[in-house]
Amino acid sequence: MKIAVDAMGGDKAPDVVIEGTAEAVELYPFMDIVLVGHLQKITPLLKQHGLLNHPRVRLVHAEQAVGMEEPSISSIRGKKHSSITVCAELVANKEADAVISAGHTGAAVAATTFRMKLLPGVERPGIATVMPSTKGHFVFLDAGANVDCKPLHLAQYAIMGEIFSKTMGVSKPKIGLLSIGEEDVKGNDLTKEAFKIISKMPINFIGNIEAKLLYERVADVVVCDGFVGNIVLKSSESLAKAISVWLKHAFTKNTLRQAGAILAQNAFKELKAIADYEEYGGAPLLGVNGICIIGHGSSSPKAIKNAIRVAGEMVESKVTDHIAARLVECGVAVNK
Amino acid sequence: MKIAVDAMGGDKAPDVVIEGTAEAVELYPFMDIVLVGHLQKITPLLKQHGLLNHPRVRLVHAEQAVGMEEPSISSIRGKKHSSITVCAELVANKEADAVISAGHTGAAVAATTFRMKLLPGVERPGIATVMPSTKGHFVFLDAGANVDCKPLHLAQYAIMGEIFSKTMGVSKPKIGLLSIGEEDVKGNDLTKEAFKIISKMPINFIGNIEAKLLYERVADVVVCDGFVGNIVLKSSESLAKAISVWLKHAFTKNTLRQAGAILAQNAFKELKAIADYEEYGGAPLLGVNGICIIGHGSSSPKAIKNAIRVAGEMVESKVTDHIAARLVECGVAVNK
Repeated sequence: MKIAVDAMGGDKAPDVVIEGTAEAVELYPFMDIVLVGHLQKITPLLKQHGLLNHPRVRLVHAEQAVGMEEPSISSIRGKKHSSITVCAELVANKEADAVISAGHTGAAVAATTFRMKLLPGVERPGIATVMPSTKGHFVFLDAGANVDCKPLHLAQYAIMGEIFSKTMGVSKPKIGLLSIGEEDVKGNDLTKEAFKIISKMPINFIGNIEAKLLYERVADVVVCDGFVGNIVLKSSESLAKAISVWLKHAFTKNTLRQAGAILAQNAFKELKAIADYEEYGGAPLLGVNGICIIGHGSSSPKAIKNAIRVAGEMVESKVTDHIAARLVECGVAVNK
Repeated sequence: MKIAVDAMGGDKAPDVVIEGTAEAVELYPFMDIVLVGHLQKITPLLKQHGLLNHPRVRLVHAEQAVGMEEPSISSIRGKKHSSITVCAELVANKEADAVISAGHTGAAVAATTFRMKLLPGVERPGIATVMPSTKGHFVFLDAGANVDCKPLHLAQYAIMGEIFSKTMGVSKPKIGLLSIGEEDVKGNDLTKEAFKIISKMPINFIGNIEAKLLYERVADVVVCDGFVGNIVLKSSESLAKAISVWLKHAFTKNTLRQAGAILAQNAFKELKAIADYEEYGGAPLLGVNGICIIGHGSSSPKAIKNAIRVAGEMVESKVTDHIAARLVECGVAVNK
């Protein structure tokens, strides 16, 4: 199994990416890595982490890299030799089984969609994130690949989410549609139409999920359009950050409270770990013809290592084949 | 000044509503209250709180009430004598200057829109909520009145938000559009079109606001469509609840941490107060021809009392007149 790693993707690339890759190379002997980046720039790091002339590490040069702030489509069109495009080409040419990148999300979506193409029957890819809740993790998609969704896209996301949830060990995933009310008729025009399609599919659809229950995990998979998904994800990050600011402020106000905070310091550490995206490593882009894992821009070496592991697991469980087959089974595959 | 209060609206109505109204009657001698509800049912409570035969309290009978779980439009069409409809009629007939209800949100939107009608130039009403952030409060709308928005609606919300923010003491409110990226071209079809309209208006528009900065108050007013707004609001409530569950769990794990929690107990109380909607009391429904304050379903007496105060302030500052005039000034008033 060969995993292509975008060495230039992420806020702290290439350092963090190469450190995480080195950990993965050591831990997962059944995987070969194809490191893609500007060889001149990464050679010192490769030496430092023992990846130069490593029998399981192939190096592929990419002259360019997409910056985190560049516009997605134009960056991919203008930079035909960027590390993410080269990674996607490796998968398209069967020289790699999967790609992982902690770089520009839009660029990763565009590069993989253009080079690897979509799976048969899929109309738009979707980013699936693994979210914490008070009762364990759940799958949430689309997190921002497709911000102008049609009802059919949501129906296809329901299936992608189902298959992904199964790879995480849920045998008959409960699928919900994010909406503004629990009743079947609640929602906007998009979700109401999607509801009609999804409720006819042979999946374990439990109906609309109200946002007020989102973090209580009433469903294993929650489906929404990419605009809403991205905003839910980012506003949740923003709120968690604000709460930690408020907590810090409240706990440092006087010496009594400071003493309390010291006694309970491990509680704070535990709390931080709950929201820790590092464990999962990244969010799969589902619907493209191949495995693509998109890491958080601020990925740590641990997150990169775990993203590589997840990519391997997804290759092994043949997620893409299952999605394509299930779309046909459920009657929502699109003939192009 | 006369404020119509829906005695039957809310999870704990009529008890909590009448208790909060009694507090308001005592505190605000310049206000008259019109209490609307099923007189037989509320008479014992009125007696208990000294509101029976009170010189500043008028009682109006309403045979029906809308339950919290009923569908909005049909409940209003089917229940022509519900307390919220009677409240809206009182405002329409100039027998009251404002209405407050902690009942069914959709029913309040429908009843006020049908009975009081919209302000001249307005196409859809919007619910404005006051949200906490690490740098003070900001105005967020639409929180769920209009789940299938057109670009013009968002432009009108920008103006409603501006006027409301001014009544809260901000002299030149910074207006932002909630989107998935900061750059002008980022967004979905709806926000990209709205951006073009809003950026031409003579308001202090600061562009797109990314959700990841929402709780840092980069703008005084954040505008979005009602589907997104409702989901941001409710998912935030859900996350805050989840974090409090995780906190409780982490702080009760062993005696050391429990001791820490006891020392710092006031810190937790402070934290809870930040997210406390009670202070503000309710969310104004803007764009209707009159003042309407929608309270949280689980409103406490304090929240009801504050909602009555806010309603009075909004009547006094002539919010509706200002909105209608400003729509014309900004070239986005609609001729019907």
